[in-house]
Amino acid sequence: MQLGMVGLGRMGANMVRRLTRAGHTCVVYDVNPDAVKSLEAEGATGAASLEDFAAKLDTPRAAWVMVPAAFTGETIDQLAAVFEAGDIIIDGGNSYYQDDIRRAAALRERGLHFVDCGTSGGVFGLERGYCLMIGGEDDTVRHLDPIFKSIAPGFDAAPRTPDSRGEPSTAEQGYLHCGPNGAGHFVKMVHNGIEYGIMAAYAEGLNVLHKANVGAEHAGGGDAETAPLDHPEYYRYDLDTAEIAEVWRRGSVISSWLLDLTAHALRQDPALGGFAGRVSDSGEGRWTIHAAVDVGAPAHVLTAALYERFSSRGEADFADKLLSAMRKEFGGHDEKPGA
Amino acid sequence: MQLGMVGLGRMGANMVRRLTRAGHTCVVYDVNPDAVKSLEAEGATGAASLEDFAAKLDTPRAAWVMVPAAFTGETIDQLAAVFEAGDIIIDGGNSYYQDDIRRAAALRERGLHFVDCGTSGGVFGLERGYCLMIGGEDDTVRHLDPIFKSIAPGFDAAPRTPDSRGEPSTAEQGYLHCGPNGAGHFVKMVHNGIEYGIMAAYAEGLNVLHKANVGAEHAGGGDAETAPLDHPEYYRYDLDTAEIAEVWRRGSVISSWLLDLTAHALRQDPALGGFAGRVSDSGEGRWTIHAAVDVGAPAHVLTAALYERFSSRGEADFADKLLSAMRKEFGGHDEKPGA
Amino acid sequence: MQLGMVGLGRMGANMVRRLTRAGHTCVVYDVNPDAVKSLEAEGATGAASLEDFAAKLDTPRAAWVMVPAAFTGETIDQLAAVFEAGDIIIDGGNSYYQDDIRRAAALRERGLHFVDCGTSGGVFGLERGYCLMIGGEDDTVRHLDPIFKSIAPGFDAAPRTPDSRGEPSTAEQGYLHCGPNGAGHFVKMVHNGIEYGIMAAYAEGLNVLHKANVGAEHAGGGDAETAPLDHPEYYRYDLDTAEIAEVWRRGSVISSWLLDLTAHALRQDPALGGFAGRVSDSGEGRWTIHAAVDVGAPAHVLTAALYERFSSRGEADFADKLLSAMRKEFGGHDEKPGA
Amino acid sequence: MQLGMVGLGRMGANMVRRLTRAGHTCVVYDVNPDAVKSLEAEGATGAASLEDFAAKLDTPRAAWVMVPAAFTGETIDQLAAVFEAGDIIIDGGNSYYQDDIRRAAALRERGLHFVDCGTSGGVFGLERGYCLMIGGEDDTVRHLDPIFKSIAPGFDAAPRTPDSRGEPSTAEQGYLHCGPNGAGHFVKMVHNGIEYGIMAAYAEGLNVLHKANVGAEHAGGGDAETAPLDHPEYYRYDLDTAEIAEVWRRGSVISSWLLDLTAHALRQDPALGGFAGRVSDSGEGRWTIHAAVDVGAPAHVLTAALYERFSSRGEADFADKLLSAMRKEFGGHDEKPGA
Repeated sequence: MQLGMVGLGRMGANMVRRLTRAGHTCVVYDVNPDAVKSLEAEGATGAASLEDFAAKLDTPRAAWVMVPAAFTGETIDQLAAVFEAGDIIIDGGNSYYQDDIRRAAALRERGLHFVDCGTSGGVFGLERGYCLMIGGEDDTVRHLDPIFKSIAPGFDAAPRTPDSRGEPSTAEQGYLHCGPNGAGHFVKMVHNGIEYGIMAAYAEGLNVLHKANVGAEHAGGGDAETAPLDHPEYYRYDLDTAEIAEVWRRGSVISSWLLDLTAHALRQDPALGGFAGRVSDSGEGRWTIHAAVDVGAPAHVLTAALYERFSSRGEADFADKLLSAMRKEFGGHDEKPGA
Repeated sequence: MQLGMVGLGRMGANMVRRLTRAGHTCVVYDVNPDAVKSLEAEGATGAASLEDFAAKLDTPRAAWVMVPAAFTGETIDQLAAVFEAGDIIIDGGNSYYQDDIRRAAALRERGLHFVDCGTSGGVFGLERGYCLMIGGEDDTVRHLDPIFKSIAPGFDAAPRTPDSRGEPSTAEQGYLHCGPNGAGHFVKMVHNGIEYGIMAAYAEGLNVLHKANVGAEHAGGGDAETAPLDHPEYYRYDLDTAEIAEVWRRGSVISSWLLDLTAHALRQDPALGGFAGRVSDSGEGRWTIHAAVDVGAPAHVLTAALYERFSSRGEADFADKLLSAMRKEFGGHDEKPGA
Repeated sequence: MQLGMVGLGRMGANMVRRLTRAGHTCVVYDVNPDAVKSLEAEGATGAASLEDFAAKLDTPRAAWVMVPAAFTGETIDQLAAVFEAGDIIIDGGNSYYQDDIRRAAALRERGLHFVDCGTSGGVFGLERGYCLMIGGEDDTVRHLDPIFKSIAPGFDAAPRTPDSRGEPSTAEQGYLHCGPNGAGHFVKMVHNGIEYGIMAAYAEGLNVLHKANVGAEHAGGGDAETAPLDHPEYYRYDLDTAEIAEVWRRGSVISSWLLDLTAHALRQDPALGGFAGRVSDSGEGRWTIHAAVDVGAPAHVLTAALYERFSSRGEADFADKLLSAMRKEFGGHDEKPGA
Repeated sequence: MQLGMVGLGRMGANMVRRLTRAGHTCVVYDVNPDAVKSLEAEGATGAASLEDFAAKLDTPRAAWVMVPAAFTGETIDQLAAVFEAGDIIIDGGNSYYQDDIRRAAALRERGLHFVDCGTSGGVFGLERGYCLMIGGEDDTVRHLDPIFKSIAPGFDAAPRTPDSRGEPSTAEQGYLHCGPNGAGHFVKMVHNGIEYGIMAAYAEGLNVLHKANVGAEHAGGGDAETAPLDHPEYYRYDLDTAEIAEVWRRGSVISSWLLDLTAHALRQDPALGGFAGRVSDSGEGRWTIHAAVDVGAPAHVLTAALYERFSSRGEADFADKLLSAMRKEFGGHDEKPGA
């Protein structure tokens, strides 16, 4: 079938490629004309403006919006202005699901259908396919099924779960209609929250391994202001974290795609010299915590993973200064200079 | 080559099977004679006692001990009593690496070689192979290489990490000599610490999804003693966690073996009715935290994952009662009865 | 000066008493006529309805609303309906500061002034006075200064901070104009977030002391499914937590009012038999976490304290069942029955 | 009665002063002869060596050791060498309680009595007195009662806990015999663990207040790599944290001695310019977590407080770099430069 794509960054462009390969036809638009030209060369129909984009799409139109989060709202508004009742707008970005609910209601008043689609896959999506978490009305989502099926990784992307029988469900092909509007981005949001937690688990554990030689390095012990190592003889391992990440990839309980990436990163540079350790976070991690707090679900791990990113960027500095100040108040302790 | 195996539970027996299939010969012993008989039927040489076991092994002997943690120490002692200088004892269980250091030193005084081998793989090890994390002297570990290679999953168990070239390292075959004695169990310990963190990340995230319908269920809001839901309209999703776990298996950033297992468990019973939620923990998770504290590595996530297990077993009860008592003291709040 | 009080529960009534004792005159109203009568007997002027209440107040009127959080919004609306331009409405409850901002803007359009006042003090406020955190316009807050001064604890309630000189600030008397509308409840919100953290610190620490005898109680050690105690000989202390809380009240770094209450609660019943350990939470703790996430301030401790309350009420059950299910999947471990 | 004091730093010297004022006689020794001379001038009997110290004490001798943690062990050994059966050695420092147990057993073999005494009070102990948590044999502790009573703050240091009647217990005077050897330092250890948690609660909460103006400061919102502030209009408060700490000291639920110190620190410099925010930790905080893990008591708050100190000193750097590296792997995200 035909799909319009607005936003031809890496993810949008690769989705167009997956669709084209699968025999669908794509009308494409981007604020950057070069991005449009590039995909035209691969067989897509380019549009020069959103008006042109709307004109080139058959009705009822279906357009997938894949632009940076900051521009999603206005892009959808502009699209809605040139679309007609019965048309469908799919938000494939990382929007806040609460915005979806409002947006869907506003579009519905004008007869437009809205679908929120959380998309995971990263830079490998062209080959791997994208995991799709979808929210919207039943009819609309069903209508778009051929599109979702082609963007998703497909049944062969993973061994079938034991005890699953019969015709593969869409989940077994890598896409799922999760519920009404917002449900897709809600599930994607929590997906990212989990991602933060898993990443932190590897990072913390590998940091322990990284420090496993402190007993050899600090033979002298601590001082009055820092806890000495009670048993330095137990921390004299000069471990190769790159090889350890590699060995865990085979047969261990903690093998995963994120571990594959970790092994690759450490193989390239075990010292990770290209990074300062200022870890960014995007909205989903934060929204997951808002949701956990709202529904009353304890989420120690997911929250700690988010806060560690805050701390990595110096956001705890005032708190830390206050702790040093209190220590000086009650114990007369001056702060120790850094190494 | 030849290997002796002491302890023929699921893991020990399956290792013998992997070794036998690979052309090695095994002498086996267990306190349970039926376990010995069963493996004799599959081609292993059974032993009636540890003395018999020692007698049937060629020198220098190599014996793998795979017994429950509580019996590892005494089994090794008994084995050492019937072994001779030059022989090798491998501890494949979940021993504390600090015990390894002491044990290796004691055995070394008597001319015996000790190898600590952390083993991951669970009930699927027979087919998948076991990920091996090894600590010990270079010569000894090199001598045992054919054994480790056959127990490990092998190169094909995972796609090769990009940018890796040439002859595959042992890590790329699923086993790694991590360092001197204790290093194998140290790495396995942290592996399990990470495992706790990853498991908790999935569990917490899926719990948020599980509760995503509280806005529909508790339309009435809270009361003076419990925070009401500020926006119930945002929490009206009746999500299918089993299908969500399934869809994440394909193409998403959080795909992993633990997710595969989660999808299977939820497919069997989305309500998890067979479980009360009292989560056990074994030593490795605790030891990982001891190590993190000792080396000064912040491990918010790994520690929270451990403490959540404690809490699941009621270990926070006194603390919780104290919190309710304080609330009553300053606010006159009586505790609310449970639902 | 004159103040109207709507809501004569424990806090509202006690504030009227503090004001009356200080020479102010109070007009009082409550949906429960007995509460009105009771304060009339102590010298206040009772009102039979909000209309009557408005009629009995001199203009410009000043009314303090001290009703349960669920009724604050509608009470303010009703009051606004019978008030006139220039009148003042003070919300002394635990409202969400974001609601204050909207409410103040709405009232301002009608010429009414709004003040948000976070109030801490609990059941001891009549004698101790109430700590007041105030948000609103400068003029309005200044106009109400005599009221705030009388409700607050006063300068003598704590020893003067060293290095503070000259005329005591209002903060040194126990009340503070924190900023524009919402600022009062924002500061009160964080105050309560901190309160959760401090309470949890005591509760967790005392729980460790409570369990310090596990080495004597579980001499037999663990089993395959639970970590055994490596060194039971170090955990053989039968400690008296009530006496310990008492001794910390004098001279220790952790003396506090919450510790005073803890000592009292433990003195009454060291086993805390009257409590099940289902700890409630009200909005402020949750809102504090929302704010921490929004502003990017790591708040591990405050968040953990909130989540522990969630867990105490069984909100982690699904997550815990999932952890047990995963353990069974990869390790074949059945869940251990509870004690 | 008579007490010997070894170690005349601030705490040791001030204890001697409190004892002298109370009519006790003190023999004092320090490796620094000036410290000895200074206390001689205040009426104490100085000793030139530990031999001299032993000679000047009446038998059975009682000596309090108050030296830096790193020297405690050898000082006690040296003292034991010049003492005789029946003499008493009190360790008033911050020793690990597990060392106490070993030490007490070794001294007992030689007929010496050992007392471990956790001491809290900081730089204000001379006036405030010291809170004492004591471990040791009943007879020995009873014998030293006059000493403990004079060092402790005394009954008047805090209002009596309601419902307490009759003769004040020693806990109500600020000292407590907690149990056998090690119990004193065990209770002091947990005391410090709680101290870390309370300090962190204030620091985190005040950090949220410190950042409450981010909505005004970052009007432009985020970018693709950092979560934008969804509602900047809710974070436009320029709060005075020094005044807020001050106002909480009177009448609020979170008033405490640590808050008094916080208010003083912020009054001196609200920007805390004299501190870099590298927060030290001493052994007790770590040992508390070891104990929590060993006894199976969930301690999210106490542990997070410790880890925040680790992070403040850069101990999470490798983990943070790894997180940035993973993000680059799956999302192609380059790390954002710091501000």
